[in-house]
Amino acid sequence: MPDINAMEDLKEVYVGTLTDSKYLHPVRLHYTQGGKKKIWDMMTVHEGVSVLIFNITRKKFVFVRQFRPSIYLNSIPEEDRKGMIDTQKYPASLGVALETCGGILDKDKPLEEIAAEEVREECGYVVDPSTLQRIIGFKGTLDYARDSQTHFYCEVTDDMKQGPGGGNAEEGELIDVVEMSIPEVKAYVEQNNVLSPPALLLTVYWFLLYKAPLYSP
Amino acid sequence: MPDINAMEDLKEVYVGTLTDSKYLHPVRLHYTQGGKKKIWDMMTVHEGVSVLIFNITRKKFVFVRQFRPSIYLNSIPEEDRKGMIDTQKYPASLGVALETCGGILDKDKPLEEIAAEEVREECGYVVDPSTLQRIIGFKGTLDYARDSQTHFYCEVTDDMKQGPGGGNAEEGELIDVVEMSIPEVKAYVEQNNVLSPPALLLTVYWFLLYKAPLYSP
Repeated sequence: MPDINAMEDLKEVYVGTLTDSKYLHPVRLHYTQGGKKKIWDMMTVHEGVSVLIFNITRKKFVFVRQFRPSIYLNSIPEEDRKGMIDTQKYPASLGVALETCGGILDKDKPLEEIAAEEVREECGYVVDPSTLQRIIGFKGTLDYARDSQTHFYCEVTDDMKQGPGGGNAEEGELIDVVEMSIPEVKAYVEQNNVLSPPALLLTVYWFLLYKAPLYSP
Repeated sequence: MPDINAMEDLKEVYVGTLTDSKYLHPVRLHYTQGGKKKIWDMMTVHEGVSVLIFNITRKKFVFVRQFRPSIYLNSIPEEDRKGMIDTQKYPASLGVALETCGGILDKDKPLEEIAAEEVREECGYVVDPSTLQRIIGFKGTLDYARDSQTHFYCEVTDDMKQGPGGGNAEEGELIDVVEMSIPEVKAYVEQNNVLSPPALLLTVYWFLLYKAPLYSP
C-alpha cells in the first residue's frame, strides 16, 4: 500500500511560468462565424479513460485517492500564491481527490485494454478487458479544453485482486485504494461539495440508477 | 431565436499561438512530495455554474446548443490542423454541443443569482434564484485545470418564459434553446458517444434517479 504520509508530505510549493509542456498545449483558435471574426483560447490535452469499479464479492466500490495539484492550487487564495506557498496553512489534504480509476491514452491500444491496465496498476485487480461495460464517451469537458473521455464500468471479485495497486511507483505515482459501500457513496454524492471530478459523479449516478437495484439489500 | 445558419456559417479557421489570455492562465506548479521534487503543468480558468432546467408544464428539459471551438478542434486530425482548416470537410456541426445552461463566474454575486441570470439570458425563463436546488459543487474536473463548478436544478413553467433566450447577442453569443422529453434524454445519455459535457450527463442521471419518478407517465 502506498504510504499516506508520503502523499501528504508536501513542501517547497510554488507557481512557475509554463513555456513548454508535454501535456498541455495552449492555442488560440481564430475563426469567422456568421460573418463575425472571433477567437477562442483553449488548450489541447491527452484523451483519457476512467473505470467505475464495483467489487461484487463485498458489494463495495473501489476508488482511488491521489494528490491533484490543480485542485490544491484552486483551494489557495490568489494573494497566497506568490512565492513559496505555506504548506502549514495549506496542507496537501486540500488537494487529495477521490476519483474513479483511470488514466490518459498514451499507448496505441484499444480503450478497454488501457482501462484494464489502469485497473491493475492502480487497484490491483486483474480484469479481462472484454468484460468492461462502456457507460459513455464524450468530447470536451471544459469550454477551454479538448478532453475526450470514455467511461467504463467493471465488476470485480476478491479473487481477481492480485496486487496492491497504488499506481506506478517508478513514475512517482502515489495512489491510495479506497473502498466504499453503496450507502456511503450515496451519502458522498449527496453532499453540497465534493473533492471529486465529474467522472466519478456521473458514473456513480449511472450505477445508482441502473445497477444499485441489483445489489442493494 | 438565434439563426441556426449563423451558428453553422463557419470559415477562416486556423490555430494560432497563445501568449496571453484573459481566460486561460497556464502555469507550472513545482512541489516536493514525499521527498521527491515534482512538477505539474496546469492552467487556471474561471469558475462556473450550470443549471439543469425542467419545464414542468410540458415535462421537457430545456438545454442549449452552441458551437464549442474546443470540441470542433478535437474532431479534426492533427495533420489537418495546419494552416487554414477546411470547413467543407470539417463543418461547424462537429463542434455544436448540447449542454446545460450555464456560465462563468465573472460577477461578484451569489451563485444562485448568476445561475438565474444565465437561465434568463440563454433560455428566456425568469426564475427566482431562491428556487434553484443545488445538486453538487466540485473543484477541478481535469487533471490539468482548476475548474470549480456548481450545478443547480431548476423547475420552470411556460408562463415564466418572458423572452427568446439565445444568449447575449452583444457579446457575440449564438445559442439555440432545445427542448427534450424525458424518454428522449434517456435515449441520448444511453448512447456510446455524445457531444455533451459531463455536467449535462451527471445532472441528467441525478434527475433520472431522483426526479423522473415524479414526472414519468
